[in-house]
Amino acid sequence: MNSSPHPPDFLLPSGFQFAAVKAGLKPSGKPDFAIVVADEGASAAAMFTSNRVVAAPILVGREHLLHSHGRVKAVVVNAGNANCATGEAGIFACREVCAQAAAAFGCTPQEIFPSSTGIIGVPLPAEKLIAALPEAKAALGETSGHFDQFAEAILTTDTRRKISARYLAVDGKQVRIVAACKGAGMIHPQLVPHATMLAYLFTDAAIGPSELQTLLGESVEVSFNRISIDGDTSTNDTVLLLASGASGVAIDAHHAGFRAALTAVCTDLARQIVADGEGVTHVVELRIEGAPSDADAVTVARSIAHSPLVKTAWAGNDPNWGRILAAIGYSGVAIDPGKIDIWFGDHEICRAGGRSPLMDEHAAHLHLKQGEYHVRIDLGIGDGTCRFWTCDLTKEYVAINADYST
Amino acid sequence: MNSSPHPPDFLLPSGFQFAAVKAGLKPSGKPDFAIVVADEGASAAAMFTSNRVVAAPILVGREHLLHSHGRVKAVVVNAGNANCATGEAGIFACREVCAQAAAAFGCTPQEIFPSSTGIIGVPLPAEKLIAALPEAKAALGETSGHFDQFAEAILTTDTRRKISARYLAVDGKQVRIVAACKGAGMIHPQLVPHATMLAYLFTDAAIGPSELQTLLGESVEVSFNRISIDGDTSTNDTVLLLASGASGVAIDAHHAGFRAALTAVCTDLARQIVADGEGVTHVVELRIEGAPSDADAVTVARSIAHSPLVKTAWAGNDPNWGRILAAIGYSGVAIDPGKIDIWFGDHEICRAGGRSPLMDEHAAHLHLKQGEYHVRIDLGIGDGTCRFWTCDLTKEYVAINADYST
Repeated sequence: MNSSPHPPDFLLPSGFQFAAVKAGLKPSGKPDFAIVVADEGASAAAMFTSNRVVAAPILVGREHLLHSHGRVKAVVVNAGNANCATGEAGIFACREVCAQAAAAFGCTPQEIFPSSTGIIGVPLPAEKLIAALPEAKAALGETSGHFDQFAEAILTTDTRRKISARYLAVDGKQVRIVAACKGAGMIHPQLVPHATMLAYLFTDAAIGPSELQTLLGESVEVSFNRISIDGDTSTNDTVLLLASGASGVAIDAHHAGFRAALTAVCTDLARQIVADGEGVTHVVELRIEGAPSDADAVTVARSIAHSPLVKTAWAGNDPNWGRILAAIGYSGVAIDPGKIDIWFGDHEICRAGGRSPLMDEHAAHLHLKQGEYHVRIDLGIGDGTCRFWTCDLTKEYVAINADYST
Repeated sequence: MNSSPHPPDFLLPSGFQFAAVKAGLKPSGKPDFAIVVADEGASAAAMFTSNRVVAAPILVGREHLLHSHGRVKAVVVNAGNANCATGEAGIFACREVCAQAAAAFGCTPQEIFPSSTGIIGVPLPAEKLIAALPEAKAALGETSGHFDQFAEAILTTDTRRKISARYLAVDGKQVRIVAACKGAGMIHPQLVPHATMLAYLFTDAAIGPSELQTLLGESVEVSFNRISIDGDTSTNDTVLLLASGASGVAIDAHHAGFRAALTAVCTDLARQIVADGEGVTHVVELRIEGAPSDADAVTVARSIAHSPLVKTAWAGNDPNWGRILAAIGYSGVAIDPGKIDIWFGDHEICRAGGRSPLMDEHAAHLHLKQGEYHVRIDLGIGDGTCRFWTCDLTKEYVAINADYST
């Protein structure tokens, strides 16, 4: 398995074409309508947000996958408008776009997978997307440049494209997985059994929708489901995985190499999302050990990752482990404070629930000044572990999200 | 029942003396050691944090109330050090202070109630508190000026004293309730059945510890348990209510007038805490209606109050109701998005889960520019309601909590 290549020299999986155009939804005037066409159709697996308030494209997309039995011909994504809290009109607008896309790409509306991201509560101008369809179709291509444009057009407050790729050899043939995602705020996917964020994964492996769903679920659980920027779970979170089969290599749900490559792509994207989080200056990997169970380890990690006091301390490079201890304490997990050890990297900070005799304030401070680092916590109770990625909370985050002018 | 008077002209309940001195724990050099002595002892009721990581004084205070059968002779409070995550040494230090205070005030150590607030994980310098005891004892007095000094010394990052008082007439006699509290960050008490924040309430009513505990529990549930600044639950939260009996008026747990006065004092203090929250520029009262149950209403309120996206929108006076809708959606309560109505004050913003036809962006913006306002949400399902007080999330909050220098 090769590591992630850098654009623009990466190879795309066969069987897909990409394009992006300007439909006029982003106030910036940047490209905001991205499409993917699977030449011969593709097997599809998807996971959606667990928020009870869901956007129209989530409702429509879920229904389409059900009726098409997990087959997708084209994906249409708009940025600049989430088409959420838009009532029946929003669902109608989404169906209109899908119907017109189906006509353009020669398939049924149920083979179109729609996504929207952007502001909530504003009617989706379907006519703008429909008007842009011919130009988008004409712009389709299968180069990495086309994929870059797709990856760029789906962005909202993100500062950069998020792309990841892995290649594996199976029986002398190459299988490719390439993916793009977006997300910088309102990031805290809660996705059991259906949820996550705006990410699109493409592979040329040959595999059916059901087995693809199993693989996607396993990968998402330890990647997108293990990150948090601000603790807000979006109404539009979506992960879509399409398999064109064009490599001619059959994969099943138990293929360890493919599973590892898929998880690597998901984890890579998840970390990129945290790193590009709104106002983020530090990416923190939490390594929880010694929890009563893996699920408890994740609960503890979430509690820490959601604590404004912990996150602001990280923003200030402040080795204030007491705030971490407090967040563990109110996580709800049955911990014993006297058994907790904490390390910042290799520096032991807290031992048995108290200040470690090895605590070196200056070394700890220097560790926290790094742009990316890990914090290891041993709860000293059981065998439960997890990794979780989160970030600091900065004045810039507040500025980005409080910015409003009338 | 009179409304809250302004210092320095308020009347204290009889039977208590107050003092505050400088023990040298606050880096600022301000008074940091506060004591209360109940001349003839007092009935006591208390509630503590539900955090599993608790400070030494919580453990010791709980034990003392148990052994003294709810009788307290003196309260010793230090600010500048939380005596938390300090292990056995912290408990020993707390016991030492209590033992010396017992000798000074002529009672058993179990009749001393200790509290600490300040930094976590730093050993408590018990010797400084013990050395300050004689000066504190000499400074005791029963004027409102003495009470002011007590209320001032317990503060940490607070910008002002928080005092509340209510008086009621019972059978021609006056019963007084006067209280002081502190707290500006790490505020999100989670207190069923034992928890809340650093607040001290004093009354001259005559009532036993058991009935006092019942009254306190009821009042705390709808006041201190209904506020959130940052979602962090402290390791030291404590509410203590002492009743001297010096008024000669016997009260029982069913006395509606006393209960109302006590709840009014608790609610007043709780709102003062939110208003003085770190970096707070807007105090927001959430009024949740139409929830499946009262408990569900509180769950929805908490979800909104913890959303960084909602809180930063409030900081920017941004009528972004979509973020509120999203926070309701991920609260875990079984809501129906299509039934949700939202008002900012009298302005209808969202109707049936979509933008209200009456939405007036400018009027909504002006409503949110107020320093204190309410947001009403009707979930349209059942009869559950609650009121909950929270605040915005500002750059100043981040600055206060990220401030660290080495």
